[in-house]
Amino acid sequence: MELWYTEQQTDNVRLSMKVKRHLYSEKSEFQQVDVFDTEEFGRLLTIDGLVMVTQKDEFIYHDMITHVAMATNTDIKNVLVIGAGDGGTVRELTRYNTIEKIDMVEIDELVVKASKEYLPFTASKLDDPRVNLYFEDGIKFVEGKENLYDLIIVDSTDPIGPGEGLFTTEFYTNCYNALTEKGILVNQNESPYYENNAREMKRAHSKIKKIFPIAEAYQYHMPTYPSGHWLFGFASKALHPIKNLNAEKWNSLGLKTKYYNTEIHVGAFALPTYVKEMLEDETV
Amino acid sequence: MELWYTEQQTDNVRLSMKVKRHLYSEKSEFQQVDVFDTEEFGRLLTIDGLVMVTQKDEFIYHDMITHVAMATNTDIKNVLVIGAGDGGTVRELTRYNTIEKIDMVEIDELVVKASKEYLPFTASKLDDPRVNLYFEDGIKFVEGKENLYDLIIVDSTDPIGPGEGLFTTEFYTNCYNALTEKGILVNQNESPYYENNAREMKRAHSKIKKIFPIAEAYQYHMPTYPSGHWLFGFASKALHPIKNLNAEKWNSLGLKTKYYNTEIHVGAFALPTYVKEMLEDETV
Repeated sequence: MELWYTEQQTDNVRLSMKVKRHLYSEKSEFQQVDVFDTEEFGRLLTIDGLVMVTQKDEFIYHDMITHVAMATNTDIKNVLVIGAGDGGTVRELTRYNTIEKIDMVEIDELVVKASKEYLPFTASKLDDPRVNLYFEDGIKFVEGKENLYDLIIVDSTDPIGPGEGLFTTEFYTNCYNALTEKGILVNQNESPYYENNAREMKRAHSKIKKIFPIAEAYQYHMPTYPSGHWLFGFASKALHPIKNLNAEKWNSLGLKTKYYNTEIHVGAFALPTYVKEMLEDETV
Repeated sequence: MELWYTEQQTDNVRLSMKVKRHLYSEKSEFQQVDVFDTEEFGRLLTIDGLVMVTQKDEFIYHDMITHVAMATNTDIKNVLVIGAGDGGTVRELTRYNTIEKIDMVEIDELVVKASKEYLPFTASKLDDPRVNLYFEDGIKFVEGKENLYDLIIVDSTDPIGPGEGLFTTEFYTNCYNALTEKGILVNQNESPYYENNAREMKRAHSKIKKIFPIAEAYQYHMPTYPSGHWLFGFASKALHPIKNLNAEKWNSLGLKTKYYNTEIHVGAFALPTYVKEMLEDETV
């Protein structure tokens, strides 16, 4: 008997991964959480049947969600991470000695529990003394906060279920207020290729650019996400991701990274024409 | 009843596309050629069960295989295209008035026949008066040719079946000799993500860089190819793809492109660290 995990990426596209074992399956009050051991991708975490993390390519996502901001402002001290229950984003952040405090707000404790047990490669740094873990709603957490964080990372699921409120103007405005004067917001910004993802990509960017004076998007290759073509948003009150890139300083840190480097930092902001046009579209 | 086309991308990974109709199925002396009409991707051409072209994302592949070279040397007059039976590469080349001659060498006439009938969106320019179509083996075609072409594009399948000889040192050396003094070679250079593709990616690049003084690789997002992370090689006797990029001139041509632009031209050469390391590996 062969076991396959199949993700319905759109109504008309499916990606299937051969499974060795189904290791974990629990339902929280928010969502369905599963862990598989797969042949090609190692451990696989899914939420509500969608790929969140695989052992084979999580380095791409976690490199790109953290190091772009950290190389733009090498003085970041206080960070807020919303979502990211697998721990991979925090793992990358803890590599910076300059970071003093990481508040991580994950709505669903079950994701952290499952990750600590089955995804030690991402969850290994959640016990770092600088990390404060809150099992709360990130949307409420940022309300009323002012001038507290140098970096906010929104490491969310798609805008369905508990992730939906993380794609609203009100939430992004609260993030703006919670940031310090050189503050940077990095957000999971969906994908241009399939229609459902592209609509959310456009909406998120359209909202953010009305709030932040600097609002860009950058791309990366994420093979296990639909189409493999995925984006993060980079928004800031004052820092431009290319003009303010401090490549020399970042490279002097000597951090070994498998995907990120300061050339791809710049290259990732060069977007295909059809993606640029979507992000400039004011009618969404 | 639902029809699905499923590609076995590796032993442990499958991509499936919902099919409206199976339009065409013929076997030539070289390979099995099929055309499907799919829900998400429009027309789909497969060879030996592998995705070659889809209507939805062929623009990405064909933009990136032609315009990078054409913007590096805006004086290209004579072009040799090997493979590319669907016609998409020739379609993009014929948009340049400066090109005087395109020799296209496709080993399998059946691919061109099927494309002309079922993929008019790519095959539409094969009748351009500047195009000379040869149904021959590209490997033999370049043997002994000297100083003839400003650009050679190797638009091949994977290095199995008839495509295999297009990944050899002998073939690349013949291409070098067939090129003019500023000649450029662009080749389908596989992908870094899955082991089988990565091995061929490394081998092809390793051979080319021993022959050409300038040998680089650039990446693009190709959702219907395994992993979606795909590369072309750029090699030249004299021209560097970034130092010699003539962005102003290319932009003055006013060509409308959906993926390519002169920023992504530069950005595409910024590769992830793990890919750079693979391409620098001398042990392959």
